[in-house]
Amino acid sequence: MTKKRVVIVGGVAGGATCAARLRRLDEDAEIVLLDRGQYVSFANCGLPYYVGNVIHEESKLLLATPTLFRERFNIEVRTRNEVTGMDRAARTITVHDLDREREYREHYDALVLSPGAAPISPRWPGSGLPGIFTLRTIPDSRQIRDWIESKNPRKAVIVGGGFIGLEMAENLAHRGIAVTIIELASQLMPPLDPEMAEYAREHLIAHGVRLCMGDGVAGFEQSSDGGLVVRTKSGAAFDADLVVLAIGVRPETKLARDAGLEIGARGGIRVDSQMRTCDPRIWAIGDAVEVKNLLTGQWELVPLAGPANRQGRVAADVICGRDSRFEGVLATAVCGFLGLTVALTGATEKALRSAGIRDYQSVYLHPNQHVSYYPGAHAIHLKLVFRASDGRVLGAQAVGESGVERRIDVIAAAIQMKATVFDLEESELCYAPQYGAAKDPVNLAGMVAANVLRGDVAIAPWQELEATDAYLVDVREPFEFRRDSVDGAVNIPLGQLRGKMSELPRDREIWVSCGIGQRSYYACRILTQHGFRARSLSGGYQTYRVMYPLE
Amino acid sequence: MTKKRVVIVGGVAGGATCAARLRRLDEDAEIVLLDRGQYVSFANCGLPYYVGNVIHEESKLLLATPTLFRERFNIEVRTRNEVTGMDRAARTITVHDLDREREYREHYDALVLSPGAAPISPRWPGSGLPGIFTLRTIPDSRQIRDWIESKNPRKAVIVGGGFIGLEMAENLAHRGIAVTIIELASQLMPPLDPEMAEYAREHLIAHGVRLCMGDGVAGFEQSSDGGLVVRTKSGAAFDADLVVLAIGVRPETKLARDAGLEIGARGGIRVDSQMRTCDPRIWAIGDAVEVKNLLTGQWELVPLAGPANRQGRVAADVICGRDSRFEGVLATAVCGFLGLTVALTGATEKALRSAGIRDYQSVYLHPNQHVSYYPGAHAIHLKLVFRASDGRVLGAQAVGESGVERRIDVIAAAIQMKATVFDLEESELCYAPQYGAAKDPVNLAGMVAANVLRGDVAIAPWQELEATDAYLVDVREPFEFRRDSVDGAVNIPLGQLRGKMSELPRDREIWVSCGIGQRSYYACRILTQHGFRARSLSGGYQTYRVMYPLE
Repeated sequence: MTKKRVVIVGGVAGGATCAARLRRLDEDAEIVLLDRGQYVSFANCGLPYYVGNVIHEESKLLLATPTLFRERFNIEVRTRNEVTGMDRAARTITVHDLDREREYREHYDALVLSPGAAPISPRWPGSGLPGIFTLRTIPDSRQIRDWIESKNPRKAVIVGGGFIGLEMAENLAHRGIAVTIIELASQLMPPLDPEMAEYAREHLIAHGVRLCMGDGVAGFEQSSDGGLVVRTKSGAAFDADLVVLAIGVRPETKLARDAGLEIGARGGIRVDSQMRTCDPRIWAIGDAVEVKNLLTGQWELVPLAGPANRQGRVAADVICGRDSRFEGVLATAVCGFLGLTVALTGATEKALRSAGIRDYQSVYLHPNQHVSYYPGAHAIHLKLVFRASDGRVLGAQAVGESGVERRIDVIAAAIQMKATVFDLEESELCYAPQYGAAKDPVNLAGMVAANVLRGDVAIAPWQELEATDAYLVDVREPFEFRRDSVDGAVNIPLGQLRGKMSELPRDREIWVSCGIGQRSYYACRILTQHGFRARSLSGGYQTYRVMYPLE
Repeated sequence: MTKKRVVIVGGVAGGATCAARLRRLDEDAEIVLLDRGQYVSFANCGLPYYVGNVIHEESKLLLATPTLFRERFNIEVRTRNEVTGMDRAARTITVHDLDREREYREHYDALVLSPGAAPISPRWPGSGLPGIFTLRTIPDSRQIRDWIESKNPRKAVIVGGGFIGLEMAENLAHRGIAVTIIELASQLMPPLDPEMAEYAREHLIAHGVRLCMGDGVAGFEQSSDGGLVVRTKSGAAFDADLVVLAIGVRPETKLARDAGLEIGARGGIRVDSQMRTCDPRIWAIGDAVEVKNLLTGQWELVPLAGPANRQGRVAADVICGRDSRFEGVLATAVCGFLGLTVALTGATEKALRSAGIRDYQSVYLHPNQHVSYYPGAHAIHLKLVFRASDGRVLGAQAVGESGVERRIDVIAAAIQMKATVFDLEESELCYAPQYGAAKDPVNLAGMVAANVLRGDVAIAPWQELEATDAYLVDVREPFEFRRDSVDGAVNIPLGQLRGKMSELPRDREIWVSCGIGQRSYYACRILTQHGFRARSLSGGYQTYRVMYPLE
């Protein structure tokens, strides 16, 4: 029996995981890992922090060296070897050895493509000027570090307000550089619903980051003092000593395309649930493939390390004859910057709508991460999306200074297990004063949603607030109401509501607001039991603020 | 139609929640909340932190006042009113108004008992001496604060090394007081398995807390200098300027017993899944009731705020005609002290064994809370217990400096949803370098367990280590091996294993250890594929250390 030869193209995240897993499952296989770069198995998620000098040493980013692969796993790693073509019929690939400048062929019994995704870098005028960078590899980040250390830039422009852009904003700020972010869309952090992304915008502004929203780059110019000028489509201009393009990534599919492998509508390699391409000898994993969103059923590009690793494992299993599956993603993600954490899992409203799904409802709440009487309590702004017909949890988004990733993780596990909002109500989570509350934010999210589904309270649609002819009541105390309130609301403190019912209309809907949506719920319970048609504005003023931001 | 009259006895946690929920469901009900203490709805979980002056103001502990209950919820609160008896046939209770020194009767349609649990306070010689305290109420904590502020104690003895004892240790240490803990059992934190509690012991010692384990209090004496001497059964004596008894709590069941309500074998009031006692007009909730452990099926006393709140909600629902249920507890709990977090959910090995359940397996792992290349990485010591026959997750215990409660919460949600270890492998959790890892500790726990169930690796039983005639191999690097190792192990670094197989016995089992159990797993994969009978010592030296502590 000849030994199985597995060749893996691309040695970061998924590729490296796949290789190591293959060896654990099969001592006999010949495993070759090829990468055109200088490093394999490096921590690409750590690159922004290396730029920011939060991580000081480059060596920390190297999770495994070729030597370790050889000694520990008996895996042959060839860096600076680029795969330039494949002959599927012959089961060979053409490899270009970049250092020796020679080409050779390599046979495979199984081929795993893990080429990743490349930063999008449009050909704007001047985009080749020195001081303009993208960030994908260790050499990329080293270049930015060198630029920072040699040029001592004071102003940076980041093009793109997605996760990487915001991580870069934190890291450049950490270097003492004033940051401007230019974002083409009207919101930051595209995976989020816009009102949830608004908390990120508020936070960035409060921390001195300048934002240029809804505007695109027109081009770059060298300024007279040797710096850069970034011109936008709207005609604005920003001085910059450093520009980072963080517009997103595009799957590396040239090799797959050239070989005639199927490419999906989103531009990623199409694979089945065993990570197999349309060629039964070829697997593809990681940022280059399309994955199915488990909530919307849509094919998506989800360039995240967690799924890439799982996919690498599944491919290795399948190559070794096991029946493993990768069914899809929840697309759980987290991003931290300047003391804020933003996380999400499952479907957003936006994603559901764009998938044509209408059977959902959403609620907002703003619980503290732990009991308010323990020092250091901060709000978590939480949006829960659930199926209206049966209460299945579909997704959650959360923003706050602490405890955010924990609640999103719990909800991610719940979604994975097909939990309903009724299950979230009953989740039994860690509580001590410094860790949470007897009713954890996750429980409260479940309760708020379950109250809606049980018919205990009706939710007023925020987006109809400006057009409604409902009677608006704010049930907070006068000192709160004076500070800020939903436009047009009448103030009746909750404690006076029972005594002031005669002042309320019976022929119109009453929409009730408060600070965070708790007292408005209590008020709705009182009002509906007394025969009024009342609805609660979910999340109260804290949601109003981001639904209708002042600027 | 006459209005329903609901009387609630005990106004903390469960009782207060029940009252507020009742009002939300029924505007018409007459709701009376009686408490013999001076306060209702106070934060009893916050009391240790008030003693420690982490919480400065007593007013912070008052979550809701009688005035708020009246104004917001139209609920009549009578503090300093003790219920002394009940006539179930007549549906009345006898109430003693402690301030007016009068007795009266109160009629009920539904009665909710929420009396809580009282600190156990054995009648040891001298236990009435000044400077010896228990902690249950705001006045209790105020007394300890006053003692600290007036006497300036330098040494304290805490009797009891459970959760409250350790929280008190942190808070007294925070006050600059040297703490000794006397614990009757051979382990701290009784709900944990002993080896997991060992991490807590190590941590306390490292932070200067003196421990007297496996010894009981014999009595207290006044010393010549006006302080206290705590004498133990073994003959030891400890000076103390302050003693806190934190031995545990006992359900307050006198009222229920006197009225002939059913009491369970653990000494708590017995209720059905609707929190109803054997009298269909009487409900009982909170620390005074027995609850069913969802994993072991055993009745237990679980004095935790989360379940108490849920029970209050269920009782209110049922009283208002809803079909809500409280099916039982996972007994998820967390405790923080001196920078360490200890948390658990579901069943421990100890609990399973004592319930006669043998169909389980457990694994240990020690992943960092986030990627090790990001600054501030710390190990989470994690034990996962799962059903051997089908992989159902049964419980988890974790100890570490950060990220502990998050992973236990995820596993708690997974257990609630009847997840298996195979589900944990695939959980899609938040990852960015400062938050976790592409393979989160929860994923790793699932993988380690699934590897066992799939037969990819066999686990060597730690408890048989001293008696086994297996050949012990440590696959770490020599510099690690020299530092510390499992007694009797031979060092063969993983990278050299393939070349040194001829040195290994084929007629004996080989038990492989390493630092944390990862390399030993790799080694077992190599060895078994080469025909050896190999087992991994789960968790490696980091587990050995607590399985066989030096002292």
